[in-house]
Amino acid sequence: MEAQIGRETTPKEYISRLTEVFTEVRRVLRPDGTLWLNISDTYAGKGNQGDFIDPKNPNGRNGQAVALNNKVEGCKPKDMIGIPWMLAFALRDTGWYLRNDIIWMKENPMPESVKDRLSRCYEHIFLFSKSKKYFFDYKAISEPIAPATAERLKRGMKGGNKYGKPVPGQPQPQSINRPREHGEIKDADINPLRNKRDVWKINTVPFKGGHYAAYPPKLVETCLLAGCPEGGIVLDPFMGSGTTGMVASQMGRHFIGIELNPAYTELAYKRIGGEI
Amino acid sequence: MEAQIGRETTPKEYISRLTEVFTEVRRVLRPDGTLWLNISDTYAGKGNQGDFIDPKNPNGRNGQAVALNNKVEGCKPKDMIGIPWMLAFALRDTGWYLRNDIIWMKENPMPESVKDRLSRCYEHIFLFSKSKKYFFDYKAISEPIAPATAERLKRGMKGGNKYGKPVPGQPQPQSINRPREHGEIKDADINPLRNKRDVWKINTVPFKGGHYAAYPPKLVETCLLAGCPEGGIVLDPFMGSGTTGMVASQMGRHFIGIELNPAYTELAYKRIGGEI
Repeated sequence: MEAQIGRETTPKEYISRLTEVFTEVRRVLRPDGTLWLNISDTYAGKGNQGDFIDPKNPNGRNGQAVALNNKVEGCKPKDMIGIPWMLAFALRDTGWYLRNDIIWMKENPMPESVKDRLSRCYEHIFLFSKSKKYFFDYKAISEPIAPATAERLKRGMKGGNKYGKPVPGQPQPQSINRPREHGEIKDADINPLRNKRDVWKINTVPFKGGHYAAYPPKLVETCLLAGCPEGGIVLDPFMGSGTTGMVASQMGRHFIGIELNPAYTELAYKRIGGEI
Repeated sequence: MEAQIGRETTPKEYISRLTEVFTEVRRVLRPDGTLWLNISDTYAGKGNQGDFIDPKNPNGRNGQAVALNNKVEGCKPKDMIGIPWMLAFALRDTGWYLRNDIIWMKENPMPESVKDRLSRCYEHIFLFSKSKKYFFDYKAISEPIAPATAERLKRGMKGGNKYGKPVPGQPQPQSINRPREHGEIKDADINPLRNKRDVWKINTVPFKGGHYAAYPPKLVETCLLAGCPEGGIVLDPFMGSGTTGMVASQMGRHFIGIELNPAYTELAYKRIGGEI
């Protein structure tokens, strides 16, 4: 679409337009609010296709506009461009706190027929905050500990385990491995939950509504659980098919969405209203 | 240790010293050689501890030198610093081709008691090449396809499956989903292997030899299988306890290691010689 972000001539321009948008997002965000930003990387093209667009398929072969294979400043052909961290550094410079680079790993990625590198299966989700202290419900997204962990904790606290002995030339073993003075650890003493980690394995899901890049609802759910209390307001400046709005309304959060493409807006209305 | 890389006052200085080292590595590398570089990130400290080192534990509480909590230029306290991508951009600028940012995910990461972000469980392994074309044995590291994949491939090629029907308003379905003209796909026609992906789940392994950051051998094995033919030469400019050398010698690759700390060198000799 005209004026669409993502069709700039250079990564620099793309980053600068996104930074502008997220500066406005930051302006309207509560002081204790968070930003969860999904972005993926791409490779520098050969540069020999210039501004060529297939006249038969001006929107690309699968109906989506294709990236122009322009030369990328600072990149050789075949280089990873590094879009996600270019953006992360830019947003940090404008005041956002950069707290996590979450790896969204897909077990069902798009196949790639490359023979001189690994095939890609992840995208980035950056967690930014507006302030030093902010709303983050770590308990809501905590996970069960591994079965072996409870065993290790109990073993560690009994006298005479091998991890309780110091390595020659090194200081004391860590306190978790020293025998306890006041009795043993029992199951009831062990927290059955652990903090959620920064690699999320979530598969993409098929979506028939005419939008290719719809999020898996589970992805949105995790971000909303940790980043927004019930009754809070979620803003999505690139709403697309409205997955975030749909999940927000199911989870009792308010939602404001912005979308340039009128076809998507219509689709999103229907999904958020529960019609699809 | 004195003159040790990793004790610089600023990330910038650290990146610049590493870049110097890898420029020399690039100089001695074959034109078709690759570089596999493991690095992890860290957070900017509070800045109120200055150059303070605990006089009782000048080498840190667990025997390792601790990072000084200096203020980091361009970072607020609590910001992720972004060391891996700072380095990746710097190395790319000096001529390296940046081909992959591999996520080394650990199921057994160090626990973190943080309450306002995700707990970290991965490090980066960057794949760089010296030239546009280079040795990369993708077959040696390929993996079995998922059982469902073969089913989907066979189904896709039969007439009349739902993925073979065009979505209204969109062009033709992809050719993989169109019925085949020359008969059906059988098991024998399907490649049972797929390309290895850029997230590697490899646990850390305990190591008693007095070195805290020893690699899991499986990690090294994957890099050597893809990046170095049998009889080739592997160079590790930060040898440490010598895991890379040990695995290289087991796999019929030659090995050159460089290490500043004499205690580690001795340890590495023993491990590469098969004594530990």
